Amino acid sequence: MLKNIHPLLTPELLKVLAEMGHGDEIAVVDANFTAASLAAAHGRVLRLSGAGLVAACDAVLSLLPLDVDDPGPVAFMQHGAMPAGQPSPLQARVIDAVQRVGGVPARACEAMERFAFYERVRRAWAIVQTSEAQPFGNFLFKKGVILAQQA
Amino acid sequence: MLKNIHPLLTPELLKVLAEMGHGDEIAVVDANFTAASLAAAHGRVLRLSGAGLVAACDAVLSLLPLDVDDPGPVAFMQHGAMPAGQPSPLQARVIDAVQRVGGVPARACEAMERFAFYERVRRAWAIVQTSEAQPFGNFLFKKGVILAQQA
Repeated sequence: MLKNIHPLLTPELLKVLAEMGHGDEIAVVDANFTAASLAAAHGRVLRLSGAGLVAACDAVLSLLPLDVDDPGPVAFMQHGAMPAGQPSPLQARVIDAVQRVGGVPARACEAMERFAFYERVRRAWAIVQTSEAQPFGNFLFKKGVILAQQA
Repeated sequence: MLKNIHPLLTPELLKVLAEMGHGDEIAVVDANFTAASLAAAHGRVLRLSGAGLVAACDAVLSLLPLDVDDPGPVAFMQHGAMPAGQPSPLQARVIDAVQRVGGVPARACEAMERFAFYERVRRAWAIVQTSEAQPFGNFLFKKGVILAQQA
């Protein structure tokens, strides 16, 4: 436990968030997601077993600056039962967190078709796997920069 | 770089601070200190090359809760040219930071004879070695706890 640090941020997750640079991405995914295989090339799957998707995204967004210069710094997997581009209720709660904690508008959150999402996750720096039991609970966040006057 | 995180806190140092538990200690030392040999059993020497002692201690204390239930959660190496128990001007600046950032009084900072300090550092979880060029620029910090209402 550290001062003013979200309790879900484990030592390994703190390290991973800090070693990411501008444009690197991190995925936060549900319990059914293909994490180990998509991360097989680098092995960085960090488990937050016991945590749900929204709490895990809250924790990540408490420290990670989003890439506000990118039109789509946040992506989520298109829900199979929702109209194209529309988030599920669970996804909408994360998008609320993106606006509230991450400081970017909902339009910065892009719905992606399942297999295109997988390909983007494959290029991410790490995958955080939660115990989220709702389907399509999968997000990607692109890191931005912190300039001196904001530190 | 992360939001509201001191820029001297490297990925590795963030991980080390987070993995420490109640009563674990971390040393922050000057450029001449015997870091690698005292840490030989575990290998956790984290280098902040370019940083001075005061800035490095500021960074550590920004996240590390001190063990306020311990009468001496902070120790420093007794300066050879100072009266017993008296800090050097450099050490006094760190003790200021301990009070300002760490929130504990100066009496919580204990001067220790050189070789006794070495033995305590040998039991520490990690050593942060700075580029501090002034002599006796060596501190130890014992981690405390964060309770739910403070998180």
